Amino acid sequence: MDNSRKSDIGLIGLAVMGENLALNMAGKGWEVSVYNRTVRGVEEGVVERFMNGRAKGKSIRGYTDIADFVASIGTPRKIMMMVRAGSAVDELMEQLFPHLAEGDILIDGGNSNYEDTGRRVLLAEKKGFRFVGAGVSGGEEGALNGASIMPGGSESAWPEVKPVLQSIAAKAPDGAPCCDWVGPAGSGHFVKMIHNGIEYGDMQLISEAYWVMKKLLDLPNEEMAKVFAGWNEGKLRSYLIEITAGILSHKDKTGGYLVDRILDAAGQKGTGKWSVINAMELGMPLGLIATAVFERSLSASKELRTQASGEYARERLRAVYNKEELTEELYAALYASKLVSYAQGFAVLQRASETFGWNLDLASVARMWRGGCIIRSVFLNDIAAAFETADKPGHLLLAPYFKNEMNRLLSGWKRLVAKAIGEELPVPAFSSALNYFYSLTSAHLPANMIQAQRDYFGAHTFERTDEPRGRFFHENWTGRGGDTRSGTYGA
Amino acid sequence: MDNSRKSDIGLIGLAVMGENLALNMAGKGWEVSVYNRTVRGVEEGVVERFMNGRAKGKSIRGYTDIADFVASIGTPRKIMMMVRAGSAVDELMEQLFPHLAEGDILIDGGNSNYEDTGRRVLLAEKKGFRFVGAGVSGGEEGALNGASIMPGGSESAWPEVKPVLQSIAAKAPDGAPCCDWVGPAGSGHFVKMIHNGIEYGDMQLISEAYWVMKKLLDLPNEEMAKVFAGWNEGKLRSYLIEITAGILSHKDKTGGYLVDRILDAAGQKGTGKWSVINAMELGMPLGLIATAVFERSLSASKELRTQASGEYARERLRAVYNKEELTEELYAALYASKLVSYAQGFAVLQRASETFGWNLDLASVARMWRGGCIIRSVFLNDIAAAFETADKPGHLLLAPYFKNEMNRLLSGWKRLVAKAIGEELPVPAFSSALNYFYSLTSAHLPANMIQAQRDYFGAHTFERTDEPRGRFFHENWTGRGGDTRSGTYGA
Repeated sequence: MDNSRKSDIGLIGLAVMGENLALNMAGKGWEVSVYNRTVRGVEEGVVERFMNGRAKGKSIRGYTDIADFVASIGTPRKIMMMVRAGSAVDELMEQLFPHLAEGDILIDGGNSNYEDTGRRVLLAEKKGFRFVGAGVSGGEEGALNGASIMPGGSESAWPEVKPVLQSIAAKAPDGAPCCDWVGPAGSGHFVKMIHNGIEYGDMQLISEAYWVMKKLLDLPNEEMAKVFAGWNEGKLRSYLIEITAGILSHKDKTGGYLVDRILDAAGQKGTGKWSVINAMELGMPLGLIATAVFERSLSASKELRTQASGEYARERLRAVYNKEELTEELYAALYASKLVSYAQGFAVLQRASETFGWNLDLASVARMWRGGCIIRSVFLNDIAAAFETADKPGHLLLAPYFKNEMNRLLSGWKRLVAKAIGEELPVPAFSSALNYFYSLTSAHLPANMIQAQRDYFGAHTFERTDEPRGRFFHENWTGRGGDTRSGTYGA
Repeated sequence: MDNSRKSDIGLIGLAVMGENLALNMAGKGWEVSVYNRTVRGVEEGVVERFMNGRAKGKSIRGYTDIADFVASIGTPRKIMMMVRAGSAVDELMEQLFPHLAEGDILIDGGNSNYEDTGRRVLLAEKKGFRFVGAGVSGGEEGALNGASIMPGGSESAWPEVKPVLQSIAAKAPDGAPCCDWVGPAGSGHFVKMIHNGIEYGDMQLISEAYWVMKKLLDLPNEEMAKVFAGWNEGKLRSYLIEITAGILSHKDKTGGYLVDRILDAAGQKGTGKWSVINAMELGMPLGLIATAVFERSLSASKELRTQASGEYARERLRAVYNKEELTEELYAALYASKLVSYAQGFAVLQRASETFGWNLDLASVARMWRGGCIIRSVFLNDIAAAFETADKPGHLLLAPYFKNEMNRLLSGWKRLVAKAIGEELPVPAFSSALNYFYSLTSAHLPANMIQAQRDYFGAHTFERTDEPRGRFFHENWTGRGGDTRSGTYGA
């Protein structure tokens, strides 16, 4: 066969994300083979419809036979899978294996669990193939016009897939593609997972800022839109702040502000909770994202809240606040809390990198998120810069630039939280972030009491401030118990 | 064989917990067979040592051969396994199966994962046996003198194991044994898991109260001990409050207060994080326990905190506070936050009960925790009473008694949190609880903004306040996007 007639890349799975990625690739000059399974009644005619519709006239070839599809791609083949995360990926891989040649590369662009990806990399490599787990963020629009792409797995595949992936990635304001090699195993999907968790946190923080403005200042929607639009001109400039301004001033067909008619019961698809669960497994605090996940759950209990609201009847008159002062404080709370959230997220990435031996480049991760994805912001430039210094900070909040920002923001932040607390207005994420900041910057915490309790009831032992670290002591607290240390009772 | 010469129960695993349970059983008049595996060099001679030591003269027979051990027990056999949670339980079960007769009962008294227990119940029942997963709380002392025992699994086994288990359980102040049937499958271990999570929360709350007292009132240890001892005479009366008073006034051999020499780096064995992970899987908020888990992690980063403390140099002079007023507020914060924590925990139990069809009796669970275990308290009487009413509350905070308490406590609670926030003192659990209470009792939350954002960037749709629940709408926010709903991009 004549390799020059072969496609540059194959793509499997023609749901919206897959279609848009194929069109994006074709638009960048790549020859693309596409394939979709044919399930009677469900996905019948998907390929045909795409080929006769959006793909018409583009450098895209459609296949309904997997062997023909694979054969149409130049070797080493690059095949991107855009199918539902989970067993569908494993099944598809099994179907593909018999048709692949040594060195061929499978790319999983779905929201796969990073452990699954690690397992698949090993499986594919054992068979002589290569595997890339690539987190793709940016939704349908990003898939079509430029996404944030976080590829990890078989490192030798990177030079092969780099030209295609970087060509379809978003470009950061400085022109750099929002796609770079993340690391081995499931690191690409892990980074994508943390990205999604941070997205949960950002959305919760914005919603708290919106709520304080609405409840304590009683601002009309257009005024709030102006505040957010103003913030979007400064250090908080970001996609989510931008669309928040748009949402607040948006009227629907009825002529009213749509945001006021939207039910306050948030959905979630689970990627936020996975960040928290994995942080917990790694023994790392990720309180801001956890708060965001829990608050979405609580919002969804609309009936319970309505009942509880009636029972407690907490509605009350509030003090009158100065708009400029309060919005300044809100800015401080939003900015500082966001910084805490990113610091927590990057600390989890750092811990994962050390635990799994991934050798992640945190500056590179920050740069990949600067365009294409939901959390894109100018703030990520500052984070990348902080991690790029020769003397890399052990924690984002220890980077000189951010230390300076935090010192500037703290006063307004804490005043805002104290006011909201006093006014019985929920600011769970602002509060969680502030308490984390207090704890992080406390040389002493009351965990000595917790250690004393654990030793008292369970002989779990403790370290002493007047002895070297790593030496553990047990006290006979009551005079009754023995000096036996416990290894059995968990607490 | 003469069944009258057989043992009433068998116990496997002679670590401290197992030994103490066997002695407890023997003390209650039961004939007990004990067995421990013999691993050269590690557990060699364990049985012999126990038999010649603490078991000497008791109604305990020791075995080093598993067949002899099983044969020594009267049928239907009741065999309690006290081995490390995880694969050790599965391996032990496989070793036991060939020796068992139909209807024999295995009891897992370890800290097993509730899903493992559910699986083991099915496995044992398929083979004609019965399986009980029993959470056991109370540590070594509880095992010896009376524990809180939470058995679930094969329900037909309950009448068989009830006499032994209730005899070795702690007695609540009203004389009721702290052991009753929990429900099917892994429900007993699930309840034990939540118990442990609540224990994490209680300990964190006490440590915050201690810290505020120490930092804002500058109270000497003996004074703080008196405050806790005073609280222990009222509605907060509980084991953990009691030992906190004891810890504060305890001096070690050096003559100094030991608590002041204990390093503030808390350990954890994972049962707290499992509560949070399972709550997340069930879509339920469990913010207070999550905060406690994260705060332990943060405390353990002692070096990072010391560095951050130096960099930020937040140490500052604090206002002078009135001792009586502040301790009153602290009492309110501690009591109300504890109530929130239990409300969250019981709500997770309720959701698990509905999700898995366990039909849990929450009043019974509360009663089981009144004695023997670490979280035992008079407060659990009030919780049991709240759930015992004909008109069971849908949420603990909606029970009339607790509603009244919360209304009484709110003012002091929020003043305390606002003060601590203003003084830059971390009170993460008090704050988390207060924000949860605010959100729970808010008919309206800003989740409409989150839903608007999700629909804006991902076409995730939303419900409207002017349409019936369950109808979902998508808006073309920008005029550019389509009307297509998304099912692919997770957020």
